[in-house]
Amino acid sequence: MSKAKKTAVTPTREENFPEWYQQVIKASDMAENSPVRGCMVIKPWGYGIWESIQRDLDRRIKETGHENCYFPLFIPLSFLEKEAAHVEGFAKEMAVVTHHRLVAENGKLVPSGKLEEPLVVRPTSETIIGDAFARWIQSYRDLPMLVNQWANVVRWEMRPRIFLRTAEFLWQEGHTAHATAEEAMEETLRMLDVYRAMSEEVLAMPVIVGEKPAHERFPGADRTYSIEAMMQDGKALQAGTSHFLGQHFSKAQNIRYQTAQGGEEFCYTTSWGVSTRLIGGVIMSHADDNGLRVPPRIAPKQIVFVPITRADGDEALIEDFLAPIVKELSAQSFGGERLRVHVDRRPIAPPEKRWEWVKKGAPIICEVGPRDVAGGSLAVIRRDGELKGQITPRDEFVARAASVLEDIQNSLFTQAATALRDRTVTVDSLDDFISVFADDTTFGRKFVRAKWCGDADTLAKLDEWSVTVRNVPFDQDGAPGKCVLSGRPATQEVIFAKSY
Amino acid sequence: MSKAKKTAVTPTREENFPEWYQQVIKASDMAENSPVRGCMVIKPWGYGIWESIQRDLDRRIKETGHENCYFPLFIPLSFLEKEAAHVEGFAKEMAVVTHHRLVAENGKLVPSGKLEEPLVVRPTSETIIGDAFARWIQSYRDLPMLVNQWANVVRWEMRPRIFLRTAEFLWQEGHTAHATAEEAMEETLRMLDVYRAMSEEVLAMPVIVGEKPAHERFPGADRTYSIEAMMQDGKALQAGTSHFLGQHFSKAQNIRYQTAQGGEEFCYTTSWGVSTRLIGGVIMSHADDNGLRVPPRIAPKQIVFVPITRADGDEALIEDFLAPIVKELSAQSFGGERLRVHVDRRPIAPPEKRWEWVKKGAPIICEVGPRDVAGGSLAVIRRDGELKGQITPRDEFVARAASVLEDIQNSLFTQAATALRDRTVTVDSLDDFISVFADDTTFGRKFVRAKWCGDADTLAKLDEWSVTVRNVPFDQDGAPGKCVLSGRPATQEVIFAKSY
Repeated sequence: MSKAKKTAVTPTREENFPEWYQQVIKASDMAENSPVRGCMVIKPWGYGIWESIQRDLDRRIKETGHENCYFPLFIPLSFLEKEAAHVEGFAKEMAVVTHHRLVAENGKLVPSGKLEEPLVVRPTSETIIGDAFARWIQSYRDLPMLVNQWANVVRWEMRPRIFLRTAEFLWQEGHTAHATAEEAMEETLRMLDVYRAMSEEVLAMPVIVGEKPAHERFPGADRTYSIEAMMQDGKALQAGTSHFLGQHFSKAQNIRYQTAQGGEEFCYTTSWGVSTRLIGGVIMSHADDNGLRVPPRIAPKQIVFVPITRADGDEALIEDFLAPIVKELSAQSFGGERLRVHVDRRPIAPPEKRWEWVKKGAPIICEVGPRDVAGGSLAVIRRDGELKGQITPRDEFVARAASVLEDIQNSLFTQAATALRDRTVTVDSLDDFISVFADDTTFGRKFVRAKWCGDADTLAKLDEWSVTVRNVPFDQDGAPGKCVLSGRPATQEVIFAKSY
Repeated sequence: MSKAKKTAVTPTREENFPEWYQQVIKASDMAENSPVRGCMVIKPWGYGIWESIQRDLDRRIKETGHENCYFPLFIPLSFLEKEAAHVEGFAKEMAVVTHHRLVAENGKLVPSGKLEEPLVVRPTSETIIGDAFARWIQSYRDLPMLVNQWANVVRWEMRPRIFLRTAEFLWQEGHTAHATAEEAMEETLRMLDVYRAMSEEVLAMPVIVGEKPAHERFPGADRTYSIEAMMQDGKALQAGTSHFLGQHFSKAQNIRYQTAQGGEEFCYTTSWGVSTRLIGGVIMSHADDNGLRVPPRIAPKQIVFVPITRADGDEALIEDFLAPIVKELSAQSFGGERLRVHVDRRPIAPPEKRWEWVKKGAPIICEVGPRDVAGGSLAVIRRDGELKGQITPRDEFVARAASVLEDIQNSLFTQAATALRDRTVTVDSLDDFISVFADDTTFGRKFVRAKWCGDADTLAKLDEWSVTVRNVPFDQDGAPGKCVLSGRPATQEVIFAKSY
């Protein structure tokens, strides 16, 4: 599209990034707010993306030895009370079930059957899974215990935002128990790397891998690690976390095992999760002013054909032309799965259809009219390029389809990785630090990599600027230096950024 | 196993079927009761079976044109109030969320932040999905609207029983809207047949397909259809239902569309669901006194190898022998998926392992010791046959593995189908009816096929005998006759049975 043309999404990213985000979700028909405060409805295009993420991640989780289970939605209050630090930390805004019956009174329904002990809807499952671990684990032979669950969780959110922060969201949560701290730490880092690999290879979303500073740890964790992605507005999105919980939860919940020598020890546990928030990350990493661009690996439909019918008989002609093409494509593989091909036969004007698929971000959109059939070719639009059909001979298209998808996947990753590189600046003075964060525009914002002393008294300043310490990247330069904020000797190099 | 031998599960089916059921679940390590009243923990073996069912059914649901979505867990009371018949019918025992915060008071957590309008945890989603349909459907072009969701639902149960009746359970619920009654009825029956096919082909569980009598309809449905399976104790299990909702919900929720002619009409809607209850059906259809027998199509592990190591070096010897076998098997397909092969390397005595897999019901269990390696063979146990290893040359085993699994799948189906046939009796007098139901033993109970007038006054009698009308099978003989209960002219032939 030339710059002069109107974009499919208004406002543009530059004009108003938060509003653009909502409009992309609407234009791509991925999800919507529901009448239930803070809860979203995930529509087929959004849920299809989630299913692709699930399939890939589930495979990686199983390949690393974990098995899926399912634990109760409800957690008794007494479980949370055992875990005091946990409660103080974040378990405050939660949905609380107090009754188990509704009765009609004067045409209204009212709660009845008060529960002896209220239940909360799980905000996360450490306590209920820990309770099971305490029963399941007897001996060192039962270790490591490696489980995962795909589930919905609820955290009452005061300022909900689709995919990024919703009262109910979908996620996976892994929970493991180990005989030694070393094994538990290995597991914590292994799953962090699974998240990194999935994020980069599948979501085409480069991330900075590191440890969260102490004040950002999951309540009850000894160590929290994260992957942090840069959105197109220069803000950071925490895309996944992995926690080394030490013996904190095992002591609170009595998760013990008999050692080979006959002694008794508390286990070391871990937990790690990613959620539907990743979809928000995909949008803010890859969408443009014409709507979403879905990385091919997670696109519910990777190649969409739009028949251009004008006269009677066109339809049959095009169907005959497309049938073998669809068959040949569907037999091919990409990213370990069969190609997902779709012919859009809805009774809607073709240009409208084309724009719908552009806004949804299908990686390849092919228009086919009677002239194309006559010429044995297709008008191929790559969603990551100019939105103009390139006339391509059908054989060439079929032969190259998977490699074009690969190319789109790579180009989306490269664009995001280039932005992350170009918009991360290393800074060693407070003046430079302040001047970088003074630019608070969509395309001006940056990540700052700088030395930090780690002291709590530096946090108030950061708060003032709405800047946070994202993480301590694994790739430390190791050189001594002074804290960019306090001027005191630095203990680490960190990423500072505004964030979601 | 000879009859004289002790069985792995106590009591046996004959001695105490309900207790045997619980013991099979325990022995196969599929699931357990949780500390949260009425909620279960589904463990890896049970969840793996559910994942297999999901994969198969999800494919069938998509092949019939439905797309997956996700709708909120919570439903505002006002939604249920709109749907009065719905509420009167079953929406009474539900988990009610009344607060959105917990605060610590004297070391205790107490609910705080009272909601203006309480929310119920979805017992089913007609109302919340109908609300979305009313927004999404404008014109005949938007129809049919075909969605499905995989979700957890909660119905407070006073007498919970793992898999069969739990407060929280997992299911899929399909919801569709159509322009005409005919299309909606076609959809209702199409999905009923999807359930029949999945149940018979995948769960190896034969079912009787028919319409529920009026008094057993889903509240708000014009017609409810079911598949009914016979458990080994002669009781019926309603394994899936499909509802033709007419315009009842569309009128209550204002789901209208503009016709091609420009008029406005209410849609016709359907809903249909199956749940983790199916796993209970699999257990009571196929398990025996030594534990579970999982139909190969849904077994999380279809072929399990148990290395028999006695001396040092045995382990390496056996690993070398098994590695290519595992590789060759894993490359094969069965039921449209790759064979699922597992080597059990845990540090546990081999006989203990073997019995564990017998109790879990892995379809094929192979023991491999140094002598087998020397002879190039395996000791192969078919879980559906004698529990004794048959020495089988490794090449023969690898070549025939998929067809043996097919054979096990078929033999489980045939056993269940034979029982259903042999234990269904056609009756045309009240005396015979009473004498059939007088036998209330595990292996003596039967289904009765008989003529019925359909009148409400016959139901009290049935209640007295704890007998219910299961459904009106599609294969009616059509001959006139007299109601077996009232003696009045019959309007239909039905299945009477005790049930879960």
